[in-house]
Amino acid sequence: MVLNYPNGKKFQKPLESHGTRIKKARSTDSTFSNRGMTLEKLLNESNTFYLTHNRAIIHKKPTPLQIVQVDYPKRSAAVVKEAYFKQPSTTDYNGVYRGKYIDFEAKETTNKTSFPIKNFHPHQIAHMRQCVEHGGICFVIIRFSLYNVQYVLSVEHVFPWWDQLESGRKSIPLTVIERDGIKVETGAYPAIDYLKAVDELYFNSDTF
Amino acid sequence: MVLNYPNGKKFQKPLESHGTRIKKARSTDSTFSNRGMTLEKLLNESNTFYLTHNRAIIHKKPTPLQIVQVDYPKRSAAVVKEAYFKQPSTTDYNGVYRGKYIDFEAKETTNKTSFPIKNFHPHQIAHMRQCVEHGGICFVIIRFSLYNVQYVLSVEHVFPWWDQLESGRKSIPLTVIERDGIKVETGAYPAIDYLKAVDELYFNSDTF
Repeated sequence: MVLNYPNGKKFQKPLESHGTRIKKARSTDSTFSNRGMTLEKLLNESNTFYLTHNRAIIHKKPTPLQIVQVDYPKRSAAVVKEAYFKQPSTTDYNGVYRGKYIDFEAKETTNKTSFPIKNFHPHQIAHMRQCVEHGGICFVIIRFSLYNVQYVLSVEHVFPWWDQLESGRKSIPLTVIERDGIKVETGAYPAIDYLKAVDELYFNSDTF
Repeated sequence: MVLNYPNGKKFQKPLESHGTRIKKARSTDSTFSNRGMTLEKLLNESNTFYLTHNRAIIHKKPTPLQIVQVDYPKRSAAVVKEAYFKQPSTTDYNGVYRGKYIDFEAKETTNKTSFPIKNFHPHQIAHMRQCVEHGGICFVIIRFSLYNVQYVLSVEHVFPWWDQLESGRKSIPLTVIERDGIKVETGAYPAIDYLKAVDELYFNSDTF
């Protein structure tokens, strides 16, 4: 049966109920529902999973803000009224795993065949070089969102690409990332099990 | 010679040059100028010193904020117009030193003879317990600001005090902190050389 408004216009379901319907359909298939999630959210969920299962202590660093003005209303919480985003001087994630310092940066692209190197910032590369020098485990997680898949790539494989950036290629081909990195499918618990790749790359002597 | 403006008003040096003069006078006595500095500032300076001298990669984590409203004015930077302070889930400082994961919390007191245990938050203690379990080096830096002096105290010495808090003493006596910790005087470069204490506590087998 087709419903019409008194003015003759066709009845349309409100946007909200459409949204709810879509959400419900999605939640039955976790892999599909992950498709719309940002890499940050997937990693936060994974880190919470690792923390509650006591596998690793890894946190995302808060976004650094330059706070200019704070109001202190009576009987309620302080409100930041003016603040500006600052350039972070490190990567976004660090922590401890199996007695080792862990440090990584996570990036995603909608590209199909390569990852643009410019997605990294100079300070992130500089920070990761120093961390490696001091004995930390450093890698990048690159998500190809169209394929809903991630790669864990040791930073030692990233530095040569960064160093040739001015004169050479502007992006790392997916085929190279597949060759040098470890593929991590998007799952349920944890959403991105990147520690499995870390085990393979840094702790399993058979793979060397 | 006194300079006057054409309107007869006296010439006054702009504020900026005054500021420079004051800064210069202070820099001749670094210990005295440090006296008014907060522990956070002293540690930030120390961490920058360690970073530029490539001794360790240790950063303070940014204050976590729940951002509610951001304005994007044309041709200028994004402005956060409403945000609230969130409870951090970790300690303030972490990084890598001599191949080890480093994690610490820093507190200061104006007390003369003891440090109130309640200055630590439950989540900080819980976080440090987990870090120790995963092989990290965890300690606290306690500053007695009246004496302009700091102590590096391994968290293993803090946990028993925390665990007896409900039924026992509410503060750790300074005499105990002096016995169990390593004293670090306030200096110039770096302002607080806490890595010297870390070397002694965790890397010098002679001290065990």
